[in-house]
Amino acid sequence: MKIAVLGGDGFCGWPTSLHLSDAGHEVHIIDNLSRRWIDTELGVQSLTPMDSIQERCRIWKRETGRSIRFHLLDLAGEYQRLKQWLEAEKPDAIIHFAEQRAAPYSMKSDRHKVYTVNNNVNATHNLLTAMVETGIDAHLVHLGTMGVYGYSSVGAPIPEGYLDVEIDTPDGKKGQEILYPTRPGSVYHMTKSLDQILFQFYAQNDGLRITDLHQGIVWGTHTDQTRRDPQLINRFDYDGDYGTVLNRFLIQAAIGYPLTVHGTGGQTRAFIHIQDSVRCIELALGDAPAAGERVKIFNQMTETHRVRDLAEMVAGLTGAKIAWLPNPRKEAAENDLIVKNDQFMALGLNPTTLEAGLLDEVVEVARKFAHRIDRSRVPAVSAWTRELAAEVEADPEDPRLKSVS
Amino acid sequence: MKIAVLGGDGFCGWPTSLHLSDAGHEVHIIDNLSRRWIDTELGVQSLTPMDSIQERCRIWKRETGRSIRFHLLDLAGEYQRLKQWLEAEKPDAIIHFAEQRAAPYSMKSDRHKVYTVNNNVNATHNLLTAMVETGIDAHLVHLGTMGVYGYSSVGAPIPEGYLDVEIDTPDGKKGQEILYPTRPGSVYHMTKSLDQILFQFYAQNDGLRITDLHQGIVWGTHTDQTRRDPQLINRFDYDGDYGTVLNRFLIQAAIGYPLTVHGTGGQTRAFIHIQDSVRCIELALGDAPAAGERVKIFNQMTETHRVRDLAEMVAGLTGAKIAWLPNPRKEAAENDLIVKNDQFMALGLNPTTLEAGLLDEVVEVARKFAHRIDRSRVPAVSAWTRELAAEVEADPEDPRLKSVS
Ligand SMILES: NC(=O)c1ccc[n+]([C@@H]2O[C@H](COP(=O)([O-])OP(=O)(O)OC[C@H]3O[C@@H](n4cnc5c(N)ncnc54)[C@H](O)[C@@H]3O)[C@@H](O)[C@H]2O)c1
Ligand SMILES: NC(=O)c1ccc[n+]([C@@H]2O[C@H](COP(=O)([O-])OP(=O)(O)OC[C@H]3O[C@@H](n4cnc5c(N)ncnc54)[C@H](O)[C@@H]3O)[C@@H](O)[C@H]2O)c1
Repeated sequence: MKIAVLGGDGFCGWPTSLHLSDAGHEVHIIDNLSRRWIDTELGVQSLTPMDSIQERCRIWKRETGRSIRFHLLDLAGEYQRLKQWLEAEKPDAIIHFAEQRAAPYSMKSDRHKVYTVNNNVNATHNLLTAMVETGIDAHLVHLGTMGVYGYSSVGAPIPEGYLDVEIDTPDGKKGQEILYPTRPGSVYHMTKSLDQILFQFYAQNDGLRITDLHQGIVWGTHTDQTRRDPQLINRFDYDGDYGTVLNRFLIQAAIGYPLTVHGTGGQTRAFIHIQDSVRCIELALGDAPAAGERVKIFNQMTETHRVRDLAEMVAGLTGAKIAWLPNPRKEAAENDLIVKNDQFMALGLNPTTLEAGLLDEVVEVARKFAHRIDRSRVPAVSAWTRELAAEVEADPEDPRLKSVS
Repeated sequence: MKIAVLGGDGFCGWPTSLHLSDAGHEVHIIDNLSRRWIDTELGVQSLTPMDSIQERCRIWKRETGRSIRFHLLDLAGEYQRLKQWLEAEKPDAIIHFAEQRAAPYSMKSDRHKVYTVNNNVNATHNLLTAMVETGIDAHLVHLGTMGVYGYSSVGAPIPEGYLDVEIDTPDGKKGQEILYPTRPGSVYHMTKSLDQILFQFYAQNDGLRITDLHQGIVWGTHTDQTRRDPQLINRFDYDGDYGTVLNRFLIQAAIGYPLTVHGTGGQTRAFIHIQDSVRCIELALGDAPAAGERVKIFNQMTETHRVRDLAEMVAGLTGAKIAWLPNPRKEAAENDLIVKNDQFMALGLNPTTLEAGLLDEVVEVARKFAHRIDRSRVPAVSAWTRELAAEVEADPEDPRLKSVS
């Protein structure tokens, strides 16, 4: 297959590109490198030393003889070039990772909110419009998040995308299937909720074939392909904006700093290893919906943990202490999370668990590159509202206000 | 009250501005005049001779001694200026009409789809972000549409915004209130569906006070204020993109052309007179939700009619014939529409019916300005999909392909 990987320079996109190239597909990466610009804006860098995308593609070619072509293109701002590219290349499948993906970054300031909505909505909508306009029959696989449902629900198991409801009609109650109602908790999550409506419309009006993968938090750094050469290594974000909770724990442990748990740590999150994530995408590619079919929605995750249990797991492996801080996010203090992921399990996924893989991350990544850690960038500082920002600022002892040194 | 009317140069915004100014409020119009640019793009103009916004404000001042201030500002593209303006002026209420509002225009081409999504989503989101950022405590009243629910539903009465559903949980079924599920039928309608999610988020996260008025098709030209001087007249769109079905019937009747009904004419639509629309907005202003309360959603309409019944009503008044054409829209051929509007009725609305007001439109507007009609612009040509476009193009007799002359 000819596959376009949009956002292929990112944390998920790069290992996906390698995995699919390795499997014999013709892979094209489209990326505007905005994520590298954001590193520059924030003054942070990947813990792992990451080469330019051009250099990475060169090394991959040298190692395997396979080409991955890179195209610098802004999906949100260069509609015409996107359309021309699709028209000329006619990919069989498109994997869409190209969005601003950090909730804390999306809540940093008004500029970041405006950027996130503008970038994500226009990127997704431009792509959909261009697919219709060029008439290419590509299967679109998009990465969404389970966070779109919010974490303050009534404790319902999160199903795969849809909900049957009963609606009052003049002839009594009638059943109807609707998109599972969302309740996004950040501007970033909100954009994924908007994406869902775009997908529903274009599947229905134009028969586009779309799969939306509602992914949990992706952890882990290496895949079979990124291990082949030090220069193929994947990025590892640990800063307060892009570092996921697990990455921050690993870094804190590596520098002997306490693991910072926000609130009670009772928030439950879903996880998946990067190796399983790329495998799920491959499975989804092989299972496209037909034209006219509703959007296929899968929950792409393999296990759930409470944040405090994660902290204890990392503490257990490393001897780190745990520190408790007020929560800058507006969310329920404690929540359950029951996720259905039968579809992927049925397709034959055989997951790596945190229990089994976490030690590798400590040794091969966090400790190995500990000398590259900028301690001042670990704390999470974006507050969700004015009130929550004031709470942090009022406490001179709050470690989020000072560097960790 | 100090009131900002965003999109105050438009069909609904202008009479609303006059009505509120007349009632003693301090009115500021913000508009980028994009709608006038679209007239230029399409080579169409309002049937009624419409002056510049600056001139209209001057006449209003001369007639009444009251000032309406006009500010040229693009909500979607000038976030910083918007924020500065809100900060400086601190309006008590903001009425948001400033979106691209024609479904056929939004489906014209890929450029029009991209423009509509970019303009409408960014306009609404920039406004919400700026309200949070400036910390002003204004009540936001937005104009949405009932079309957001789609017209192919199971015949459920359209409630005012919310639906109670039962969700499976580990402890059995639990009730939950959700936004009434949408199924938008055009890119334009889709943007209103996206707006709903933006409102839900900002009401919940930041306590913004928001009312969303899901309006039916607005008909009629004059209000008490626009009648005061010929130069205060409201716009009247009759072209295939912006002319609503009723306006096109009026024009067709005025030039002795058959009334063109698409499909069976079995589509039911909701209607409201412009005089009642401005009154509803005033009522909604006086009934703001509290901070932290959910978004208030009202159905702003007063009657429903099938398109073929409307055609017969106009034919009865004018002697026009009816012509039947294939439908360029992807929608159900026949639909019922039962709309709840108890909230406005309870607030004391006393509506003008089509039955009672339609003759005035024929005499005072359609016939009076019939010499200004450009016959070639009446047919509706935007097709919803490639297949539907091909259907029209295959029929050389289809009057949408030629001018009406
Ligand atoms: N990492 C996770 O834990 C996780 C979890 C759930 C869902 N996801 C989703 O998976 C996708 C990829 O996540 P990631 O962690 O790889 O993010 P990332 O930021 O590392 O990668 C995203 C890539 O997209 C590019 N991009 C952004 N906007 C673009 C635009 N307008 N035009 C072209 N390129 C653009 C960026 O430059 C970057 O290379 C995102 O949509 C994210 O929401 C990620
Ligand atoms: N007219 C109807 O029958 C009807 C029915 C239901 C809902 N509505 C809604 O009511 C609102 C107003 O409708 P209308 O018929 O008056 O439309 P209109 O096109 O006549 O007016 C909209 C105004 O907003 C301005 N505008 C658009 N984008 C802008 C931006 N980015 N920045 C600043 N100004 C901008 C335009 O220049 C125009 O003056 C729309 O949101 C529409 O969806 C109208």
